Order: sequence, then structure tokens, then C-alpha cells
Amino acid sequence: MDQPYKIYVCSFHTILLEVIMQKKESIATIRARERKYFERGPEWFCEFRYSKIKGLDQEENVNRRDPSAVLCVDGTYYTWYTKNTGPHAGFGTGDLDAKVWPWDYSEIWYASSKDGYTWKEEGRAVGRGEKGCYDDRSVFTPEILQHDGHFYLVYQAVQHPYLRRTKNTIGMAIAESPHGPWKKVDQPILKPTDTGEWLGEEDNHLSVKHKGEFDSHKVHDPVLFYYRDKYYLYYKGETMGEQLYMGGRETKWGVAIADNPTGPYVRSPYNPITNSGHETILWPYKEGMVAMLTTDGPEKNTIQYAEDGINFNIMSMIKNAPEAPGPFRSYSTTDPLCGIKWGLYHICHDGWNYIVRFDMDLWQREYYHERRSFNDK
Amino acid sequence: MDQPYKIYVCSFHTILLEVIMQKKESIATIRARERKYFERGPEWFCEFRYSKIKGLDQEENVNRRDPSAVLCVDGTYYTWYTKNTGPHAGFGTGDLDAKVWPWDYSEIWYASSKDGYTWKEEGRAVGRGEKGCYDDRSVFTPEILQHDGHFYLVYQAVQHPYLRRTKNTIGMAIAESPHGPWKKVDQPILKPTDTGEWLGEEDNHLSVKHKGEFDSHKVHDPVLFYYRDKYYLYYKGETMGEQLYMGGRETKWGVAIADNPTGPYVRSPYNPITNSGHETILWPYKEGMVAMLTTDGPEKNTIQYAEDGINFNIMSMIKNAPEAPGPFRSYSTTDPLCGIKWGLYHICHDGWNYIVRFDMDLWQREYYHERRSFNDK
Repeated sequence: MDQPYKIYVCSFHTILLEVIMQKKESIATIRARERKYFERGPEWFCEFRYSKIKGLDQEENVNRRDPSAVLCVDGTYYTWYTKNTGPHAGFGTGDLDAKVWPWDYSEIWYASSKDGYTWKEEGRAVGRGEKGCYDDRSVFTPEILQHDGHFYLVYQAVQHPYLRRTKNTIGMAIAESPHGPWKKVDQPILKPTDTGEWLGEEDNHLSVKHKGEFDSHKVHDPVLFYYRDKYYLYYKGETMGEQLYMGGRETKWGVAIADNPTGPYVRSPYNPITNSGHETILWPYKEGMVAMLTTDGPEKNTIQYAEDGINFNIMSMIKNAPEAPGPFRSYSTTDPLCGIKWGLYHICHDGWNYIVRFDMDLWQREYYHERRSFNDK
Repeated sequence: MDQPYKIYVCSFHTILLEVIMQKKESIATIRARERKYFERGPEWFCEFRYSKIKGLDQEENVNRRDPSAVLCVDGTYYTWYTKNTGPHAGFGTGDLDAKVWPWDYSEIWYASSKDGYTWKEEGRAVGRGEKGCYDDRSVFTPEILQHDGHFYLVYQAVQHPYLRRTKNTIGMAIAESPHGPWKKVDQPILKPTDTGEWLGEEDNHLSVKHKGEFDSHKVHDPVLFYYRDKYYLYYKGETMGEQLYMGGRETKWGVAIADNPTGPYVRSPYNPITNSGHETILWPYKEGMVAMLTTDGPEKNTIQYAEDGINFNIMSMIKNAPEAPGPFRSYSTTDPLCGIKWGLYHICHDGWNYIVRFDMDLWQREYYHERRSFNDK
């Protein structure tokens, strides 16, 4: 009967040691307290599930990507997206006409749907500009605003040639129906700042004498809202001489604000307004704006809220978020996740980009909510 | 010639406004400064790529999951894993013998490989205990330590019946060769604390009068190291009455320390030592321990470092990390990611779990490093 005795001694020894050693806080526990990780419930927390759609799915030799927000107009859903054909060769081929990326030589197309699952490609909304124009090489990553009887498309534009150091701009086109006709604004509504300085002549966007502002190289992924009686143009910036940090790529969002839809758009003095995030995903909630940051930066995979649309606080840390989504536009004063219930996004498979659907998945919230009796009164 | 004039006015207006408005810091920029997001480079940052392996791949009616760390012994790789057969029915069927989870009614098996890609299943390492023993229902989620001529398997153990409120334990078996024979330690080396109180008689693990400590319900995913002349048993804890927070599930890690491999294991007074993370993944680096937190909690998808093995600071924010990985055991004093270069993990497809391989992917780091001239001297 050695064994029971030994166990008894061990247990006593263990209990004694645990009593003797005064309880201490680990750095992780201190950090959790300081950052208030456990003071907020899952009201801003969600997961996502994914499904295929018909009509914009995988097609050999065709890229469809960057779907805009989904609008519902007269009972029909609409989305706008980047479309182009043919393979891409990358930079540095020596051929300035060679297609460099899956978003090079693009046009903006649109599609409609009655149910959000089966889509009909309707045709081209906005094409490239004439040779010599700021958008003669590619127009892509569209977003849509419906406001005051007008539809506003905002999108990236690139002028030929498309090199690593090429600075892009943001263009706009306006229509009075989802079906167009679209009238382009003559000039870009936003350009990168002119605050960095390249080093040397090599086409290397990481080589700089100094980096310049966060949006000195690229102004990407524009999304436009009518908000606080003004036009808020959110975008992702990339700096000349981008670096890699503990959180990965150096991408941050900015906002430029105008009294009129066509501008002039004036950058917020608070820019950058995020320290992370790739494609812009935002939606209005109560008096503020919600942002979902994915893919890049130290705060990737967070949902954040700014009461003023500018100063964003972390509200939840999520996972498996869709990249580059276009959410169905919906507004609520009671559900902070109203603007991300479902939508479209793109994936890449076998070298071609195509569009799929996401739906918010609240199984975990519902499970914990239904089963919980702790803290219930 | 209206247009050029208008543009000139707009540009001037824009510049003027930007000059007038004094530059301000957004809350996100302040947070980045306070948390030092941009003071650390990508030395701890990585991505992962995935590939199939032969020998432990998908098989109808069989679950292979939770691969341990991969050891190299006499030029051959070894891994241990959870294995069971047949479908599971979930809780609440009324049949106490029904298999509840893909890790119920498991045994611990092992496999060997010469190249890390083609594996040979060698057979059972550790089975379930006799009826009435603490491990008579399931043994699973093994981890392996090779030290001082011995091999130590640590694993979860469950005693029949397996209900929602069942508390598990951590068992150990010892051998002098990867091929065994394995001798079990008679009693669990760690149990959940006895600090919470269930509410009511219903088998509901979320219903409590009070929650108790972070590891009052479950001690999961043990991993053992010989470290600082002692045995450090890291594990994931789950509390009785777990809640969902802004970061998702409430899972945290603890560590229990012993002078001898079989115990007694005494919990650190600093427990919990993380505020996040699901399956434990750790490796030694320099004098400290590195942890990769995935899946759950506000600090999911981070790599953290503790100089003392206990107080973990965030070193990088990653993405697409393998869940439940068993990394190849490797030590370095110069590469903080030495312990996660490659390994095995499991995925679930068509209802069955099987084992695949991950490899660290540093393309982004190499890209930025090679191309950068900024800050280079």
C-alpha cells in the first residue's frame, strides 16, 4: 500500500506549496487588465461562414475581384467589381505593356441579383480613360455610395506605365441609376501625398531617402460615406519605402472629407486613423463608424469603433474574416454588426480570382448566450 | 477653359486647409506609440504554408489528430497523436456510452518518417486504462519530451462517463525508446482546481454559482519541458462557467513546475500566464520560452516571449497559423522562430480529422529584406 501514502504526501506537499506561494499577477494578466480584455462581452464579436454563388464564380482566364458593398435598389441587389482577363507577368519584365497584376488593365463591371446567391453580370460600368488620362491603364477596387438620388462610384486609377514606383490616384464616376450611364469626374479626387523621396533610379518602391507620410505611395481601396453632413472618403495608404514590422506590412487607413461629393477632399489632420488593416471595410452605427481591420498590421483581425468616425477603439478581436469584402449596406442603432451581416468577397484559386459570399456566423455567441446561467439574474 | 481654373482653386484650397489644420494624433496612432507597434521589426513575424503528407492522411471512419512535437531520434522523425475510429454523437444523447467528440474513446498512437513527408504508422503507444481508472474513457492530445535518456508522454485523460461537466486530468507515461514500452504513472500528474461551484443539476458547464479559477474545469493540451533544471508542464485551462468576451472564448494557459518528471507539479503563483490561446505551442529560445497563441482570446494569433518562461510579452502579430501544431523540436540562441520551422497539425474534412504538414514561410520577410535600402547602412 505504498501508492496511496505517496499520493497523500504529494497532495499535501502541493497544497502546502500553493498556500505558501502568494498569488501573483503575470504580465499577461496585467496586460489583460490594463487593456480591459475581459470588461467587454461578445457584442462586437462574430465569426464568418462562406458559400459559393452563381454567375460570378470561377472562370478560366477571367479575374473578378474586389466586390463593392451590395446595395438593394427597388428590390434588386447590385454589386460592382474589378474585372479583367488574361494572365499577369509581374514587374520587371522589361515590357511596359505587360500586365503586371491581377488588377492591371481592369474595368469596373457590375452584376445584379434577386436573392444574393445567383448573380447576373450586367456589363461594364466604368472603363479605362483615353491614352494620357490619369486612368488610362487600369480602374479597379470600386466602392459605391447611394445618396440623394445619385450613385457614386469611387475606385483606384493607374496611369500607364504601371511600375513598382507608380503612384495611383482615386477616381469617381456618378450616375442616377445603378445601370448608369456613369459620368466620370475629370480629375482624381485624391492623390498620394508628395512627402517621400525615392533613393536611386531603380524601380524599387522600398528604396527611399525618406519615407514620407503613410499615404505617400498609394491611396488604395477608397470607400465613400455621406456622414455628418459631409462626404467621408476612407482609404488605405501605403508609404514610399514601406517596411515590415512586428505586425507585418505597414498599411494604415486615412480619411479625406469634403462638403461636396466631387471634392475637394481634405485629409483629416488625425490621419492615419488606423495603424493596421488592408482593404477598407466600414459601416455606420449610431453616430459613429465601425471598421473591420484584416490582413495586415498589429491590429489585424479587429473590429473597431469611432464615435466621431476618426478615433477608432478596438471593440473585438476576430478570426477568419473575409478579405476584401463588400458587405450588404444596412444600418442599425442597436446592432453594432449591422453592416457586416452578409456580402461578397473574392478568393484566388488556380491563379484566377472570383467572387464568393460570406455570412456572419454567431453560433458561438448564441451557444454561450443560451447556455449561460452565470451572471444571469 | 473653366476646368483648369477650378482645379487650381481646389488644389490651393486643399493645401491651405491642410496647412491651417494642425496635425493631430488619432487614437490609433497614440495606441501604436504606447504599445510600441512600430519599434520592433519582423524578426518574430512569419507566415505558414501547408502541404499534405503520406501515411497519416484522410481515412474514412478514422480520426488522427493533435500530433505531438516531432522528435528526431537516430536520424528518424517520430510523432505521437490521438487516434480513434467511428462517428461521434455529441452530448445529451442519454446514452452514457455514446462517443461524444472526435477525441472520445481515443488511444495514443505514433508514427515514424525519414523525410517528414512520408510517415509510417507504427502502432499504439498508450491505451486507455482499466475500468475505474482515471483514464478509462479516453487518452488524447499527447506531447513528448526527450530528456536524460527517457521519453515522457503527457496527455489528457478522461474517466467514464464523459459529460459536459466532466473534469479531465493530465496523465504521463515513460519509456526509454520511442518504440516503448510505455509505463504509465499510476495517478494523474495534474487535475483541475476545485475552486468553482456548479449551479443546478443539469449537465451544463456554463451554469455555475461561481466560476472558480481559469483551470477549474479543464486542464488541456499539456506540453512538458526540462527547463531551468526543473520540469515545466504548460497547459491550457478552461474555467467552470466559461464566458465569451470581446476576444472570443475564455481560454488561458497555466504552468505547473516540478523537481522530478513525475511530479509533484505545483502551479505557478503567476497563473494564468496567458490571457488567450487554445492548443499550447511553445519552444525554448535563449534563456526563455516562446509561445504561439492561436484560435481563442484577445491575443489570439500572436507570438510571445517570456525570459523567465512565465511572463509573456507580445513579440509579433501573425496570421494563418496552424491550429494544434506539433512543431519539429529545434533549439537556437539566435533565431527566435527556431522551434516552429516545420511540423504537423490536424485539419477536419468531411467530418474526419487527419494530419498534414506546415512549414514556416518567410517570403514576406525575405522580400522586404532583400529589396529594402531604407535604413540600410
